Amino acid sequence: MTFPESSNRFGQDEKGIRMKSYRKELWFETPGRRAFINITRQIEAVLKDSGVREGLVLVNAMHITASVFINDDESGLHADYELWLEKLAPHEPVASYRHNRTGEDNADAHMKRQIMGREVVVAITDGRLDFGPWEQIFYGEFDGGRKKRVLVKVIGE
Amino acid sequence: MTFPESSNRFGQDEKGIRMKSYRKELWFETPGRRAFINITRQIEAVLKDSGVREGLVLVNAMHITASVFINDDESGLHADYELWLEKLAPHEPVASYRHNRTGEDNADAHMKRQIMGREVVVAITDGRLDFGPWEQIFYGEFDGGRKKRVLVKVIGE
Amino acid sequence: MTFPESSNRFGQDEKGIRMKSYRKELWFETPGRRAFINITRQIEAVLKDSGVREGLVLVNAMHITASVFINDDESGLHADYELWLEKLAPHEPVASYRHNRTGEDNADAHMKRQIMGREVVVAITDGRLDFGPWEQIFYGEFDGGRKKRVLVKVIGE
Repeated sequence: MTFPESSNRFGQDEKGIRMKSYRKELWFETPGRRAFINITRQIEAVLKDSGVREGLVLVNAMHITASVFINDDESGLHADYELWLEKLAPHEPVASYRHNRTGEDNADAHMKRQIMGREVVVAITDGRLDFGPWEQIFYGEFDGGRKKRVLVKVIGE
Repeated sequence: MTFPESSNRFGQDEKGIRMKSYRKELWFETPGRRAFINITRQIEAVLKDSGVREGLVLVNAMHITASVFINDDESGLHADYELWLEKLAPHEPVASYRHNRTGEDNADAHMKRQIMGREVVVAITDGRLDFGPWEQIFYGEFDGGRKKRVLVKVIGE
Repeated sequence: MTFPESSNRFGQDEKGIRMKSYRKELWFETPGRRAFINITRQIEAVLKDSGVREGLVLVNAMHITASVFINDDESGLHADYELWLEKLAPHEPVASYRHNRTGEDNADAHMKRQIMGREVVVAITDGRLDFGPWEQIFYGEFDGGRKKRVLVKVIGE
């Protein structure tokens, strides 16, 4: 399956505005195994391009060893997450996971992603991400070193 | 509350297509306590029946000891998840959970479901589930042996 | 950024009903550090005010040390969650978390919130929350003693 990286469908007539949808992929390639990347500005730019004023935006990892989540942009917290996830789902010993018998060494990344989540759905109000004071959207990579994508889908009017 | 198992509401006029919604329940009865069932093909069939080309699909467990999640369809990984969830939220000793004093023995299933999640929201683009290369939708059962449902709700145009 | 606490946008013409959106904030101030509050009745009231019959409702914590989740309203289970989350992400020793060097003591609350989740998306069918037999919506507070908000965003027709 291939989709255009970006598309915009309008349904409009002289009496009002119809449902719109807008789609965009964001690409990442992190050099190390794990990273947290603040993608809030990129999602805001997609929202602006969409022209949607009221609706929902879905932001999801398209790969199963990565996450999209909302939390604080504080480096100490990110270091804590790294240690905490490693405690709950250790990378080593690699041979302790059956999944790694397939030739992979990323079984722990599939676990970490379940705790941090695949996706977030964010309200759009008056053309903006409807956020509390410290909410920021992150891409969480748990098995980096290759190109991966995040999907942004905007639905509304 | 009862809803029809399947319903389709169109709002259409001669100038364009309005928002549509479509609803379907999927039923499961797993013989053992725990199971992971790939339901991707079933969700694709619901999407096709809905006629929606652009929008969102919500897929959620309707029971609080089950999950819907997206990950890899690899049997080794599923065996790893089983062991990992049992380590994080052991079934036994059953008496260690207050919830089980109600006569249940499924408190651990309520914990496991929180880690694996209740629901996924998936983008619909050009009439298809807008998925990355390995994304598959699973029903995760943590307290089987009874009939349970998954809700599929399609919204779009 | 400030948004009105409640807003309702209709798009209607003589030929049918357009997409609607409705927004409401719910405020909480829990005296202790942690609490689980059943907010199902409040979400039902917002849904009724919205006038939406078919669509989706997003309910999300606007703060990053709180959760919105769906599970059972059983006090024993809530006591179990409290113990389980404390085991997976202990509050103490407070100094074991780098985030707490910023002057906070709530790093554990950021972890607990990831396990319990930021948000739920619920289907709306025939003007009602489309729920299984035991589903209830909860606000989960992990760092209380201050005013915090939950956002309810209704999209549909």
